[in-house]
Amino acid sequence: MRLRVDLLPHGHYADVVVVIDTLRATTTAVTYLERGADALLLTRTPDVALRLRGEGFLLGGERGGLPIPGFDFGNSPVEASGQNFTGKTVVMNTTNGTGAAHTAAQTGKHVFLASLTNAHAAARRAKAQATEEVAIVCAGTDEHVGLEDVYTAGVLAEYLLSLGEFTIDDGARIALTVRRGSGNPLEALSSSVHGARLNNLGLGDDVRYAAELSTSTVVPTLVEGEDVPEGALRFVAG
Amino acid sequence: MRLRVDLLPHGHYADVVVVIDTLRATTTAVTYLERGADALLLTRTPDVALRLRGEGFLLGGERGGLPIPGFDFGNSPVEASGQNFTGKTVVMNTTNGTGAAHTAAQTGKHVFLASLTNAHAAARRAKAQATEEVAIVCAGTDEHVGLEDVYTAGVLAEYLLSLGEFTIDDGARIALTVRRGSGNPLEALSSSVHGARLNNLGLGDDVRYAAELSTSTVVPTLVEGEDVPEGALRFVAG
Repeated sequence: MRLRVDLLPHGHYADVVVVIDTLRATTTAVTYLERGADALLLTRTPDVALRLRGEGFLLGGERGGLPIPGFDFGNSPVEASGQNFTGKTVVMNTTNGTGAAHTAAQTGKHVFLASLTNAHAAARRAKAQATEEVAIVCAGTDEHVGLEDVYTAGVLAEYLLSLGEFTIDDGARIALTVRRGSGNPLEALSSSVHGARLNNLGLGDDVRYAAELSTSTVVPTLVEGEDVPEGALRFVAG
Repeated sequence: MRLRVDLLPHGHYADVVVVIDTLRATTTAVTYLERGADALLLTRTPDVALRLRGEGFLLGGERGGLPIPGFDFGNSPVEASGQNFTGKTVVMNTTNGTGAAHTAAQTGKHVFLASLTNAHAAARRAKAQATEEVAIVCAGTDEHVGLEDVYTAGVLAEYLLSLGEFTIDDGARIALTVRRGSGNPLEALSSSVHGARLNNLGLGDDVRYAAELSTSTVVPTLVEGEDVPEGALRFVAG
């Protein structure tokens, strides 16, 4: 079995793909499902999300860390954790994470979303589904590598290596080294460029929330279906 | 002053750019100049190199680690170190390194080539020339991150930080952590996918040569001029 870590989305995924955008899209996605949402629709663009607004969905997302006009929610896991989404479908569009999920879905056979908050459950799910490869994909920030995503990839990689035999690529070696050499999760996230920016925007609670390790066993799982709107991917709790 | 490390070539460089392809293009480039070459012409494609063949130049390069038909030399620093290139210009084309140099040259004001063998000299030169940013660019292997390049970037970053004040990005943080957590240079290079492939091709001597730290003070430096052939970049010893 191969373990591959892409420090930025690359494409050409053969089997299982685990998408990480720790600050904050995938952390928030886990929280929506944890708080009862039926499903998430990750859209390719904000426009696709806005077109779905009239159809009874809630809209969540951000650009540059700030809410999008016309959306019901930002991209805050803390905000999501205080709400009840039972029976709701949440439409999400964010700067980096939702695009990475679309790249993963182009060729991946099984696509999951992971954060630190569901890291061990996501790793177990990936291992259980994979027949040849687990690819962990870091969303990054505006096409630049994000320390927080590479750190999270290292946490998943470390746990995967404890679950079975893998041949690993250089991306996985780098992620494992970053995981071991960057302190605890909150130290790692706080030292990242994106973590510092969120702190400066007054969103430090989100950084602390995202740094909690394996507080959830919910793994957002891509599902297909004829009723999925064009330009969107549907994820449900798995 | 900003210090930025791109784990793969990204473009949009504002000031000083240092291009790294440790296994083996930039290590070999340093060696050609160390062994007396007047200049290097790094071409965008093998075809551009072959067109220059009739004009009295020597050709060096590889595809997938192996020599290119019609070229005089492979991409081996050990082979280069046993020759005398005094008065010669060497035309180089390689799988990853020469392309990264062309990406750097699109916008960079000062472009240098670095390897472990000239790491400290390259860092000093970059610091001396920079007015706002030093960008270290890892060539990678076929669009995948290469541990050997990130490790070398970490060596340069570590030395740069000892020379002055820098604000650093997440790429630099990752490179510094990889440098500190991946053992000595030969251990790091040997554990990389590309290092293992070269060892399997019987090119382990090149890996050992490339792992020698700061054996040279030659820094290949991009220079402009009307006589530079189209599709090529001219580097001289600096």
